[in-house]
Amino acid sequence: MENSVGIVSAQRATFDTPLTCSSGAVLPRYELVYETYGKLNGDKSNAILVCHALSGHHHVAGQYADDPKSTGWWDNMIGPGKPIDTEKFFVIGLNNLGGCHGSTGPSSIDPQTGKPYGASFPVVTVEDWVASQARLADMLGIEQFAAVVGGSLGGMQAMQWSLDFPERVRHVLAIATAPRLTTENIAFNDVARNAILTDPDFHGGNYYEHGVVPKRGLRLARMLGHITYLSDDAMADKFGRGLRSGKYNYGYDIEFEIESYLRYQGDKFAAYFDANTYLLMTKALDYFDPAHRHGDDLNKAFAAAQANFLVLSFTTDWRFSPERSRAIVKALLHNRLNVSYGEIASTHGHDSFLMPHAHYHALMRAYLERIAQEFSA
Amino acid sequence: MENSVGIVSAQRATFDTPLTCSSGAVLPRYELVYETYGKLNGDKSNAILVCHALSGHHHVAGQYADDPKSTGWWDNMIGPGKPIDTEKFFVIGLNNLGGCHGSTGPSSIDPQTGKPYGASFPVVTVEDWVASQARLADMLGIEQFAAVVGGSLGGMQAMQWSLDFPERVRHVLAIATAPRLTTENIAFNDVARNAILTDPDFHGGNYYEHGVVPKRGLRLARMLGHITYLSDDAMADKFGRGLRSGKYNYGYDIEFEIESYLRYQGDKFAAYFDANTYLLMTKALDYFDPAHRHGDDLNKAFAAAQANFLVLSFTTDWRFSPERSRAIVKALLHNRLNVSYGEIASTHGHDSFLMPHAHYHALMRAYLERIAQEFSA
Repeated sequence: MENSVGIVSAQRATFDTPLTCSSGAVLPRYELVYETYGKLNGDKSNAILVCHALSGHHHVAGQYADDPKSTGWWDNMIGPGKPIDTEKFFVIGLNNLGGCHGSTGPSSIDPQTGKPYGASFPVVTVEDWVASQARLADMLGIEQFAAVVGGSLGGMQAMQWSLDFPERVRHVLAIATAPRLTTENIAFNDVARNAILTDPDFHGGNYYEHGVVPKRGLRLARMLGHITYLSDDAMADKFGRGLRSGKYNYGYDIEFEIESYLRYQGDKFAAYFDANTYLLMTKALDYFDPAHRHGDDLNKAFAAAQANFLVLSFTTDWRFSPERSRAIVKALLHNRLNVSYGEIASTHGHDSFLMPHAHYHALMRAYLERIAQEFSA
Repeated sequence: MENSVGIVSAQRATFDTPLTCSSGAVLPRYELVYETYGKLNGDKSNAILVCHALSGHHHVAGQYADDPKSTGWWDNMIGPGKPIDTEKFFVIGLNNLGGCHGSTGPSSIDPQTGKPYGASFPVVTVEDWVASQARLADMLGIEQFAAVVGGSLGGMQAMQWSLDFPERVRHVLAIATAPRLTTENIAFNDVARNAILTDPDFHGGNYYEHGVVPKRGLRLARMLGHITYLSDDAMADKFGRGLRSGKYNYGYDIEFEIESYLRYQGDKFAAYFDANTYLLMTKALDYFDPAHRHGDDLNKAFAAAQANFLVLSFTTDWRFSPERSRAIVKALLHNRLNVSYGEIASTHGHDSFLMPHAHYHALMRAYLERIAQEFSA
């Protein structure tokens, strides 16, 4: 495929040094699964870390040899000649701790019990992820990232890098994100979590040993999520009030096209995603709040940062609205940091950050070309 | 209590003429439970019908003798000296067909089987409700209402009155409503319905005979509903990111104040509301679309109307935004109908229509005083 990084394969890193989580829980040992694209240059100055959002993972670009349909989730952004150009950059994608795509998470076997962690897996935070990502960087010999990049929850990790490891990241690209969730954001997450927690097949998080999966709850959580990822206009344009059979059927089976879409998305997701991981990811979102320990002053929170920033938002994103990105920009400027900000006109809501939108990709490309000049000379 | 209609009691009307629903289903016999406040004048020209929204019922104002806490849901609007002044008007509230507060609905006993209707109760529409309300008016000897009033789904019924019985309603007061649901509105309803439909205790709608209630699903539906009734700002003002114990607990019990509120509301609702009624009410919302049979032309839909209209919307209502009300106003004006429109600055989102907001009540009062002059002379 043109401009593709081509066939890729995942790698696995094992960490035997215990990780103390924000909660105080200690993971004595864990594994992270990751992929890399492009080549690390001689002075290891061209590395970009891509942090994933709620349902993402390490397979960011390319395909697996045994499955031509297995295109990475951000393949439109990453590859030779693409905005994140793998001819210039060494790109790393990983599955976060607590994930369900290969890294140690609730569905992994706890070596101390020989059974899946389930409910005993700690609730991890954005800070914990960044700490675990830093260890992966250590292992790969990367002292400083050229950039840490992420959209949504991924953008929160990118920002956290600038706070916890100010000298280890030259640029932060924070896309469609927020300095913390609003009350409404938390409310939606709570409904999604309650759908899972109250599913009779959840068994307090230890459903693995019962041979069941809380699919009903996970399906509802995903359906609800999808509403918040799309814009009202995008949904109206795509589905309108279209009826599958052209008429009302006066029953509760699928009637409107939007119902068909949501139920399909819910079923698809519930078939492969782990419910405990979903719970944990939404909690990490709720907890992210760098201003909290600074008296709710975001200016003070970013006082530690040294990186340069690209902040991007999308006009129809009502989950993480442009207003939220502007709050980030304001705090960065207060600290006299270098900030570029783009507010991109897009009809696709929060999902825009995953779309091959021309203006968006042009802004990303321009910014990344500037980064590349720092080391390519 | 000052300005209260005082102690009230519900009445019951039985209709033995079969009602053919929009779906084609026939209800051979049904009962409607209702309340009245004030006195019907000599020429029966001072009657106001109040139509309820999704979770409302016939107990609109006053208290029951045996329960001083049983204040009606719109008591702040209706009473002696209140905007809907019971010194001037004869006000009727009823529980809609399909409801769960006394009128015939899915939880009622089907005389043909001796068991609750359950899944066999027909999916009724706004048109069906208006038809059944007209029969109640016949029974009470009311040929023409001075006004039909409603907020949200109640506003849809008020508008439908002007289309189906143009000569039987002098004024329509349509508050916080819409000419039809948006795709996003339907999407939220579908998630709520799926929470109920996939609850193992739902039993295809026939849970009564299993001695269980799909409480989990109903609870989730209500939690989700509450998010859409409030505005982002109102939630932020009321709950913010407040934590019940002042700190993160790294678990899935209630932590944020908003979680406490939502779960409380969900539990409370699930303890008394009927799940089949919830399904049926959301479907009536989805189906309401007077423009549909007129080639999606709302102007043509309102061509039949003769009533005068008061249309009110609230600035922070994102469920039924002011834009939706303006679409109604535009179609009414196109048909040269008398329309008053008010867009009220309120922070309370969709719920504003139930609040004792001064500007809102002043507009209602002024409009209703004008109506009263039509017959008080």
